[in-house]
Amino acid sequence: MRQGEHGGDIHEVANYLGVPASDVYDYSSNVSPYPIDISVDKSALSRLPEPYSRTLAKAFAEKYGYDEKMVCITAGTTEAIDIICRIFAGKSACIKNPTYADYKKFCKNNKITVRNSLPVELYFICNPNNPTGQTCPREFLPTYFKTSPSTLFVIDESYMPFHIDEPMQTLMGEKLDNIAILRSFSKIYGLPGLRLGAVIANEKLIEKMKNQMSPWSVNSLAQSAGLELLDVDTAPIAKRLNDIKVQFLKELESIDFLEAVDSDVNYMMCKMKRGTSDELFRHCLNQRVLIRDCSNFEGLDNRHVRFAMADDMSPLLEALKSF
Amino acid sequence: MRQGEHGGDIHEVANYLGVPASDVYDYSSNVSPYPIDISVDKSALSRLPEPYSRTLAKAFAEKYGYDEKMVCITAGTTEAIDIICRIFAGKSACIKNPTYADYKKFCKNNKITVRNSLPVELYFICNPNNPTGQTCPREFLPTYFKTSPSTLFVIDESYMPFHIDEPMQTLMGEKLDNIAILRSFSKIYGLPGLRLGAVIANEKLIEKMKNQMSPWSVNSLAQSAGLELLDVDTAPIAKRLNDIKVQFLKELESIDFLEAVDSDVNYMMCKMKRGTSDELFRHCLNQRVLIRDCSNFEGLDNRHVRFAMADDMSPLLEALKSF
Repeated sequence: MRQGEHGGDIHEVANYLGVPASDVYDYSSNVSPYPIDISVDKSALSRLPEPYSRTLAKAFAEKYGYDEKMVCITAGTTEAIDIICRIFAGKSACIKNPTYADYKKFCKNNKITVRNSLPVELYFICNPNNPTGQTCPREFLPTYFKTSPSTLFVIDESYMPFHIDEPMQTLMGEKLDNIAILRSFSKIYGLPGLRLGAVIANEKLIEKMKNQMSPWSVNSLAQSAGLELLDVDTAPIAKRLNDIKVQFLKELESIDFLEAVDSDVNYMMCKMKRGTSDELFRHCLNQRVLIRDCSNFEGLDNRHVRFAMADDMSPLLEALKSF
Repeated sequence: MRQGEHGGDIHEVANYLGVPASDVYDYSSNVSPYPIDISVDKSALSRLPEPYSRTLAKAFAEKYGYDEKMVCITAGTTEAIDIICRIFAGKSACIKNPTYADYKKFCKNNKITVRNSLPVELYFICNPNNPTGQTCPREFLPTYFKTSPSTLFVIDESYMPFHIDEPMQTLMGEKLDNIAILRSFSKIYGLPGLRLGAVIANEKLIEKMKNQMSPWSVNSLAQSAGLELLDVDTAPIAKRLNDIKVQFLKELESIDFLEAVDSDVNYMMCKMKRGTSDELFRHCLNQRVLIRDCSNFEGLDNRHVRFAMADDMSPLLEALKSF
């Protein structure tokens, strides 16, 4: 088997290997390996979700110092990207490669012309970036946004909570009219099964988004989980994963065919000096180790792989050492 | 306060009344009052959902005698309607009023011209219909579909499992090339918080739908719940709600201002001979009783209301008797 469109499809991998999903060592999915233990109120399922997750939107807005009219809760950042692209259907967008593939996918679905520089109507910035793990300096961004007031800059901060310097790097709190900040509940909380994200933007854009989306796109359990998760201090999770990364980097020094790219977050891209990403993917798979072959990222080739930090890095290290 | 866009927003009503949502008697939402007690595996949330809910799609297809390539699992029928409308953007559609409002909403979002007769590219049939509760005779439909092979007929069977004659009335099992059948996991199982639905259609359309949607639109818990729910025999639920409806109809005879429309399902539309639907809505609300004011259904006016069957109909009956 080969790598799919995205990383993290351990269901297909487990099926292919004929083992339960829990027997696969997954370093391909960029989520925290420490899922928050949320309480689950089953009775919530017997009611329609609250339209537009109003209560959660309000709590989220309060936590970050925004008016609730500037917040839209979505079924993951995927829905947010989808809806923003629908609003900009037929216009133009800038995407700097390599980056998360869904920006381009939804642009294509909505006949948005993709360029790699201004002037454009829409500009996607994944910050920190996926798959490189690198962050645009905070001080640089607002100045840049002001150079093109008619462009909507979408800053996807899905991985920002993994940055050990998050408070200094995040744009949360900014209220510029031409930015939309995306935040994810999947990654730092380790709960990608929830499908929960948030967009912070000017009131007009938020209203347009709500007009485009289903009022019930977020499931009831995700709504109540979201409220609980807002109280979780994520800094210790970022710190712990950073410690694992520092240790992993040391171990990587003895693996001569890999060259690591500096990363601010919980995953790390490496360039291969011999062999191909597909070969390494299959080699690891035989040891039940799932990595991300990055060859299908635009702007990268078949010498790039990505590893997400997990509590136990030894199965990955062993697989790498025997390649 | 007034009726919102849809029925069933007990969150807003409870907020308005200053009581918990569980203290509101809800007859506005068309879901079964007997939620199935599903098991909840929290560990599923720490993994990305299976892309396109493949396992559930396969089980669903097997249960109803379809090839799995003819099935698409969606985040409720809402997502299904949304995506079908996106595929038909800019074309024309037929919607027979009164019916469920979201067909028109998503047509409008996608610049689809709405007509009330053939020829059109898309034709929505809510069967049994919402809010009337009436069913198009089964024998009539396939013949009609054949008169316009270039039209896609979307048959929304969200409420079909409430029909006590479901096996004779459903189109499930039909494999005509120009139909798409929508099924809901919210209504008959009493779990609208799940956000889970299914579409059965020709392979090409299903493939187009998957290209338009997020592979992870359905949350992990909903995927595993769906598998469990496929084994539930829904006939006893339909029977029980039908018995309640028969009894309720008898009681209605003594309420002279209401004229009931014959219904095949778990809700019933009534025409008011005096007063307005808004007055009745507010009168009931003061008794913590939530009904559906149907005045915002196109084709109806402010003399129409709808009641869904619940285990205890007496709070509604008392509110109606004192109007």
